Amino acid sequence: MSLRQDAEIIVEESIKAVLPDETVRKVLEKKTFPEGRVFLVAVGKAAWKMASAAVEVLGERLEEGIVITKYQHVEGSIPRVTCYEGGHPVPDENGVRATEKVLDLTRDLKAEDTVIFLLSGGGSALFEQPLLSLERLMEVTGQLLSCGADIVEMNTIRKRLSQVKGGKFALHCAPAKIVSIVLSDVLGDPLDMIASGPACADSSTRDDVRRIVEKYKFSLSEEEERLLREETPKMISNVETVVSGSVTALCEAAAQACRRLGYKTVVLTSRLDCEAREAGRFLASIAKTYEGTKENLAFIAGGETVVHVRGEGKGGRNQEMALAAAEGISGMENVAFFSVGSDGTDGPTDAAGGYVDGRSRQRLEEKGGTIFGALRNNDAYEALRLCQGLIVTGPTGTNVNDVSVLLIRGRS
Amino acid sequence: MSLRQDAEIIVEESIKAVLPDETVRKVLEKKTFPEGRVFLVAVGKAAWKMASAAVEVLGERLEEGIVITKYQHVEGSIPRVTCYEGGHPVPDENGVRATEKVLDLTRDLKAEDTVIFLLSGGGSALFEQPLLSLERLMEVTGQLLSCGADIVEMNTIRKRLSQVKGGKFALHCAPAKIVSIVLSDVLGDPLDMIASGPACADSSTRDDVRRIVEKYKFSLSEEEERLLREETPKMISNVETVVSGSVTALCEAAAQACRRLGYKTVVLTSRLDCEAREAGRFLASIAKTYEGTKENLAFIAGGETVVHVRGEGKGGRNQEMALAAAEGISGMENVAFFSVGSDGTDGPTDAAGGYVDGRSRQRLEEKGGTIFGALRNNDAYEALRLCQGLIVTGPTGTNVNDVSVLLIRGRS
Repeated sequence: MSLRQDAEIIVEESIKAVLPDETVRKVLEKKTFPEGRVFLVAVGKAAWKMASAAVEVLGERLEEGIVITKYQHVEGSIPRVTCYEGGHPVPDENGVRATEKVLDLTRDLKAEDTVIFLLSGGGSALFEQPLLSLERLMEVTGQLLSCGADIVEMNTIRKRLSQVKGGKFALHCAPAKIVSIVLSDVLGDPLDMIASGPACADSSTRDDVRRIVEKYKFSLSEEEERLLREETPKMISNVETVVSGSVTALCEAAAQACRRLGYKTVVLTSRLDCEAREAGRFLASIAKTYEGTKENLAFIAGGETVVHVRGEGKGGRNQEMALAAAEGISGMENVAFFSVGSDGTDGPTDAAGGYVDGRSRQRLEEKGGTIFGALRNNDAYEALRLCQGLIVTGPTGTNVNDVSVLLIRGRS
Repeated sequence: MSLRQDAEIIVEESIKAVLPDETVRKVLEKKTFPEGRVFLVAVGKAAWKMASAAVEVLGERLEEGIVITKYQHVEGSIPRVTCYEGGHPVPDENGVRATEKVLDLTRDLKAEDTVIFLLSGGGSALFEQPLLSLERLMEVTGQLLSCGADIVEMNTIRKRLSQVKGGKFALHCAPAKIVSIVLSDVLGDPLDMIASGPACADSSTRDDVRRIVEKYKFSLSEEEERLLREETPKMISNVETVVSGSVTALCEAAAQACRRLGYKTVVLTSRLDCEAREAGRFLASIAKTYEGTKENLAFIAGGETVVHVRGEGKGGRNQEMALAAAEGISGMENVAFFSVGSDGTDGPTDAAGGYVDGRSRQRLEEKGGTIFGALRNNDAYEALRLCQGLIVTGPTGTNVNDVSVLLIRGRS
């Protein structure tokens, strides 16, 4: 099998392991529930797929459920489940109304009841019941944004202006148990950040709030000031959380595929967050060091790199990383590198990422392109197209960041 | 022992392993020579130190020797060895005259004779006997530089205009044997690039020369054109080369020190060549992934990163890398990162590099600095000074690039 074929298998198997339905099935199939009723609440961009899989596993055991997802993300009806669509990334009335339905469904539950809470990216906007008017919430959010507050400061404030964020949804469901299954698109899976943590104890305090308000000198109404003085839950005991799909699982699945194909495999990181092209160069420098070794080796890095767009070309972070790596591994016979976004969409392109090997640079130059020129113009898409390095999967329905793999075939 | 103490031990032991005298002693102590005479030729910035060590090992066995090094680099007299100093990085008449002495010493040798040839960085300028006037050689080099020729193209031309480069010194010594001991400051140790390969078969051809001359449209005299048509040696059978000191040895020594201190150790690369601060971020992302693991882990990366100076501060590539890593590992109790230049001089500073751990960012901020601000202004030196992160060794006398180490203490 060629290196390219190995790459295709690894991409396919690693993405499959973090598909929303797969992640839900994995958890629920092992699960037993107490005697009471079982409810389902699914929120986020992958909510419909996650809920469908849950209903398949739960069957008659499910009492009733609600899905809240982005517009155009409901793919059909699900037995016993009502599906709503709402605004994302900016919350709207439809999302708020749907959240109210969730609060109705989960009101006055009993200790023997269970809420299966399926969370995916986009939950922060889609699952919201503000304690002030939606209009006013938008204004406060706008103030936060324009004064340069960071995401932690933003969430510290928003959790206090919401009826569901910052662990308050968990309190609302108590004494029922919540089984929370998370598909994480935030590196490191900080549970109180994903969808602003509806079922997670809040680590921020009133003191933090006071400091933020003073720092940015907000204009707030008396009622808002009162809300900001309220404390969020610091201990939550009715929630069991499983991060089932995340970049860590994506990397682990890639590692398993590599091992099955005979590569001795190291997962270097699942928190990669540096400049895409420099990460490509770093990984190529590993290839330069281990090229010609006896064993088959695979090095895996997962995360979400960044691109500073200065040119006018087309590309994405995975494509830039691969193209930059192509320079370093040029001429090597037994080395390949590829990087893909698990959602199947890398930047504003129809490619999921890029594949390069020791012949890529030459192929590109034979077609009149150069790596240097393409990187300068952020034009990795066109360059990879010319050297047959685009990886196209189509939208995958999941989103747990990216995975990059360096393959080195041994000489033995 | 603290992480900082571990770091100090690792720095000390890894640099010690690649000191010029150490590298020469290691090779010569295991060596036996044929019955004939033994000569010594040492060229480069570390020539004096390498020659001193060689003479200590060889004792009476040495017939006669010559050192050619940079001005101010002769530290005293060595028995049976004449020391010369010459121009670097631009060659001058003193270097050329000294090279002539070497050619005299090694003329008409016999098959049972041996030339010990000690090579270190700077040899390209210091060991030169041009086939045209030195003035004219400078002009041609100037043309090459100003038209943007890369280092490979430059050497392809220069090897043909020299009486010693591109394997010609080895031919001059034949039928005597040459034992070449190399202290390499070029990543990947390309032997025909180090000092333009006086004792190494040349891989460039007359066709390459023709393409370069056409590409840049040189103005050359008839004599020069004739010289460029001459072929360089393609097979050299009287040379045995040992790269004794190099960044690979530096990394291996660091790895040994880490293992001795109880860290499970991986050398990621000895060819690191990306942007310094991004390499720091990459390595910090590894820390984020493995923090809290049971085992003690060490990740090592050697090479020579680059810095694009945009600010007006003071620093060096090792200091920038460490400072950038400090952001990613901030708050971690059991993680440290450090990076040092083996020559003891990082950028235009008196520091060899930088050390950071989970408290560095906070320390810096308590003194009123920020990582972001210091990186923007290329001011890593001052930032590291404020958080007690400077590593100062003084000049070490060796130069085999840099080594960077990430230490993670396990929780067990």
